[in-house]
Amino acid sequence: MRYPNGTGKNNRQPMPNTRENNGYSNRGMTLEEDINVTNTYYLAAEKAIIHKKPTPVQIVKVHYPKRSAAVITEGYFKQPSTTDYNGLYRNKYIDFEAKETKNKTRFPLANIHEHQITHMKSIVEHGGICFLIIRFAVYNESYFLPAAKLFPYWDAKNNGGKKSISYERIKQEGFLIPFHFQARINYLAVIDHYYFSSKQD
Amino acid sequence: MRYPNGTGKNNRQPMPNTRENNGYSNRGMTLEEDINVTNTYYLAAEKAIIHKKPTPVQIVKVHYPKRSAAVITEGYFKQPSTTDYNGLYRNKYIDFEAKETKNKTRFPLANIHEHQITHMKSIVEHGGICFLIIRFAVYNESYFLPAAKLFPYWDAKNNGGKKSISYERIKQEGFLIPFHFQARINYLAVIDHYYFSSKQD
Repeated sequence: MRYPNGTGKNNRQPMPNTRENNGYSNRGMTLEEDINVTNTYYLAAEKAIIHKKPTPVQIVKVHYPKRSAAVITEGYFKQPSTTDYNGLYRNKYIDFEAKETKNKTRFPLANIHEHQITHMKSIVEHGGICFLIIRFAVYNESYFLPAAKLFPYWDAKNNGGKKSISYERIKQEGFLIPFHFQARINYLAVIDHYYFSSKQD
Repeated sequence: MRYPNGTGKNNRQPMPNTRENNGYSNRGMTLEEDINVTNTYYLAAEKAIIHKKPTPVQIVKVHYPKRSAAVITEGYFKQPSTTDYNGLYRNKYIDFEAKETKNKTRFPLANIHEHQITHMKSIVEHGGICFLIIRFAVYNESYFLPAAKLFPYWDAKNNGGKKSISYERIKQEGFLIPFHFQARINYLAVIDHYYFSSKQD
């Protein structure tokens, strides 16, 4: 495994928005890249099995050239019907969505879709661990917001309430995700604390 | 939800090998279609949340026409690095692969890839429920084979043993998946029996 530059065999699907990894600093990597590197580490260290789901593509035309691989010549991006990441940790089903915002004061709920909330509510009802990772790019801070704490804001928005959650509220109700050299977005540490320790808030 | 013709909103990504659904008979539908219809029913009935992962595509070129959706003009199919289906049922992480064979006497192990076995072994170690659904198309029978019963055959193959599992062995070690009008491949019934009842073989 060629780590930590993110070219290990478990690191799937290079993203179009890939930027240079400037050494050990967290700067310059997107949230998605950081999470992918983290998941690759978790997998190699046998801590958890979490994968990003492939981008859903509606395939319309495929060309089959002789002696070489099939080429998709017409396809369209589809709206994902669930969340981006899921997997298994400490016998529990894990499911989450990751969102990055450049906003300094709030996280706009327009970043999430109704059907994703429906999915997240089902996950919680069936005993899964479900959450949102929100990065405030300006502060280079990523927060872990348990799904159960997201739902009241969503429901309020649907009833004419605010269309965003303030940065302050996320700081209060969420958990700042610690940086770890190999697990750059070390969200399992938050899961350990919040779901597996007895002192759940 | 437009059920059971498989066009409900949770039924994602129409497959290129779609055949006509001839009424209530199981004949004429692929294993994948049957599982998709089953999963849609499970979801609507709030029994389980199981989705097929999107087909992984390596996107190379995207065209952005004015006033219409982005078009992928060059893409390639990628080998999936995990299994096709995963989700959540009765607080447990569920993970499986589905394979159909036209063979009358055996299931060829060439249908499965080494990295999928690696993934399945990790799932079992981390406390997930992992299995294979194997359809013998000729008999129109689908079997549920727990991953733990698949591994010895795989390891034997890697040590120079047989490259397939006989139909008879699968009948003995696996479980015939019952047909249910709405859950055409009613694999949750097997999970209930095998993993949740006390009389585990």
